[in-house]
Amino acid sequence: MNNRMTIETEHMNTFPKRIALLGSTGSIGRQTLDVVRRFPEHFHIVALAARSNIELLAEQAREFQPALVACTAESAELTLAAREALPGVVIGERGLFEVATYPEADVVVAATSGLVGLGPTLAAIRAGKMIALANKETLVMAGHLVMQAARQAGVEIRPIDSEHSAIWQSLHGERTAEVRRLLLTASGGPFRHATPEQLRSVTVEQALAHPTWRMGTKITIDSATLMNKGLEVLEAHWLFDMPYERIEVVVQPESIIHSMVEFIDGSIKMQASLPTMHLPILHALSYPLRLDTASTGLLRELRWPDVGQLHFEQLDIARFPCFRLALEAANRGGTYPSVLVGADEEAVALFLAGKISFPGIAELIEAVLERHQPVEQPDIETILETCAWARRTARELSPVYGEV
Amino acid sequence: MNNRMTIETEHMNTFPKRIALLGSTGSIGRQTLDVVRRFPEHFHIVALAARSNIELLAEQAREFQPALVACTAESAELTLAAREALPGVVIGERGLFEVATYPEADVVVAATSGLVGLGPTLAAIRAGKMIALANKETLVMAGHLVMQAARQAGVEIRPIDSEHSAIWQSLHGERTAEVRRLLLTASGGPFRHATPEQLRSVTVEQALAHPTWRMGTKITIDSATLMNKGLEVLEAHWLFDMPYERIEVVVQPESIIHSMVEFIDGSIKMQASLPTMHLPILHALSYPLRLDTASTGLLRELRWPDVGQLHFEQLDIARFPCFRLALEAANRGGTYPSVLVGADEEAVALFLAGKISFPGIAELIEAVLERHQPVEQPDIETILETCAWARRTARELSPVYGEV
Repeated sequence: MNNRMTIETEHMNTFPKRIALLGSTGSIGRQTLDVVRRFPEHFHIVALAARSNIELLAEQAREFQPALVACTAESAELTLAAREALPGVVIGERGLFEVATYPEADVVVAATSGLVGLGPTLAAIRAGKMIALANKETLVMAGHLVMQAARQAGVEIRPIDSEHSAIWQSLHGERTAEVRRLLLTASGGPFRHATPEQLRSVTVEQALAHPTWRMGTKITIDSATLMNKGLEVLEAHWLFDMPYERIEVVVQPESIIHSMVEFIDGSIKMQASLPTMHLPILHALSYPLRLDTASTGLLRELRWPDVGQLHFEQLDIARFPCFRLALEAANRGGTYPSVLVGADEEAVALFLAGKISFPGIAELIEAVLERHQPVEQPDIETILETCAWARRTARELSPVYGEV
Repeated sequence: MNNRMTIETEHMNTFPKRIALLGSTGSIGRQTLDVVRRFPEHFHIVALAARSNIELLAEQAREFQPALVACTAESAELTLAAREALPGVVIGERGLFEVATYPEADVVVAATSGLVGLGPTLAAIRAGKMIALANKETLVMAGHLVMQAARQAGVEIRPIDSEHSAIWQSLHGERTAEVRRLLLTASGGPFRHATPEQLRSVTVEQALAHPTWRMGTKITIDSATLMNKGLEVLEAHWLFDMPYERIEVVVQPESIIHSMVEFIDGSIKMQASLPTMHLPILHALSYPLRLDTASTGLLRELRWPDVGQLHFEQLDIARFPCFRLALEAANRGGTYPSVLVGADEEAVALFLAGKISFPGIAELIEAVLERHQPVEQPDIETILETCAWARRTARELSPVYGEV
């Protein structure tokens, strides 16, 4: 993050870089493979792990020829299918850990969704792997454990989120001690001008229609509630060691400016591109170098006169209670962020299943947070138990809160 | 500009920094003193030079107590007044050179306007002074001499122009070899949507009413014709060692984004603030550190929701022939840029005096450029002679071209 770090990592940055990919069949996983495919001289896939899309995992294994493939298949039937399609596949959670600590890997791309990535990511850090982190929950729930482990192991955590990549890029050659504030940009989602009445009748289809980004369903709903932006504030806090009062959010509906850093002298630096995850992935893998994408077809070129205009708006926190809840959980600390993550996972699932209304997501999460008995400095078991408790409690309370 | 340079300069960057200021009574000179006044622990003025505003120069000398004061007073009367107001003042061009090479100075701020700064700036470089450069003509006419001298003396040239400061800041911690293009932003001036008929009848008052910046008269007219942006392209070429085909201009009418760098991976970095010269001046003086301006009252804080929106437009080159002429002179090289500078100085003076029309500025400059017999790799004498020839020729041709 500062000049000295830039220099020190430089000579370690030899190509080809050997990549272990956790979550290869998800949205970020597939886009990571797009990047690797475009730069065969620079990146090699040495290990792959996925959950249950065995057909795609097998196809990826054929193309990239990793030495290790793991599948955390969830049923006996899937396990059987995985063993047939992928000779030598490692099955179950053990597989995730083996991929995360695979000796020949230089980098672990942590692109699983939800809680499952936490343990393997910590194991990868302890094994000295550089981490390219796409999994928000890991830092939100266990930032204190992850960053401490990274410091102890002398390991870099590089962001794959577009916002955090923008901040990281804006900090290259700068000092975090000279930062006045981080400005996370938010598209504002599809409902940034909706009335409370309109919000109450939001359908699943409306909530899944994000104006600028194509993503998985969970993160798309989190973007519509602004929970995603709240989680990103926590993520930024841990990644950049920045107090919460110096992290702000500004709505930038076109999603062209991916985030900004304001320095103590008043200068603001920011990073832009058309909405794409390929660029943050590439930067996390190629840094401190930049690789030429011109002839790869990976990115559409941004032409400013075509962009035409950019808008900036205040985030209306009253309209987005999930954002407020995330900040409250952040400031309370301890196990509160784990409750937030667990309750949100369940609440979003209930909304997608038609069981609760859109405003019900926040109401349910708030009810779970209110019932929580917090633990300070939780260890990994406490975090996972808290998260499970929050999911369970959300399910139990759902007939009471967030009625459709 | 790259990481290594950042590190090497770091330990040399001790405060207080001792500043010699060329052109202290002009717009940039006065704003440099604003910055110094706000940071008395960090910056000391050790030498001052100005042209003919003796009253202000004497006031500045009383306030900042420099060890050396020079005045290039233009008449016997002014010389007498200067000697009376400033005991020990050095009179004439010799004074500029003495200030530029003053042994106790660490930094020379080159903020004279026009040609007069060229010789002293080269002398300062040869004396090993770091240069904070606000004078465009120096690089436009003699970029090959200045940058070669800087390389030989191991001296840094830091930009004070807001556009070049934005590019420099966007390049901190990055490699110039990984730049795809520099994107200079332009406000577009007051006439970016004017018709040819409207341009023909532009008055001096209209041309002096710049929409976003308050500056001296010469640069304000150059901003209205876009000559200023053309000169900035040449300046960027020399400062950042960037071929002309990789420098583009985009109109950003609000003057909030001060310029951008697009890297080979497609990532775009940029720097923003409300329009201010205090920030580029401060950055040139404080780099590699940033100083806290929060309690200084030096800068108005930028609030994004107040900015509301930013626009981006293609520069309409057909409407701004001065911009085209600057690029043609740049690509021809040799003494052509010196002709451009000389002819433009004269043409702007003739326009301000009501002797030629607004479109006449470009017509006159083009006529002078057409009559030029170029010299390759000109030395400083040839540059100054060429410039004087261009002014003379512009005066001679003015009754024929650019009629009111």
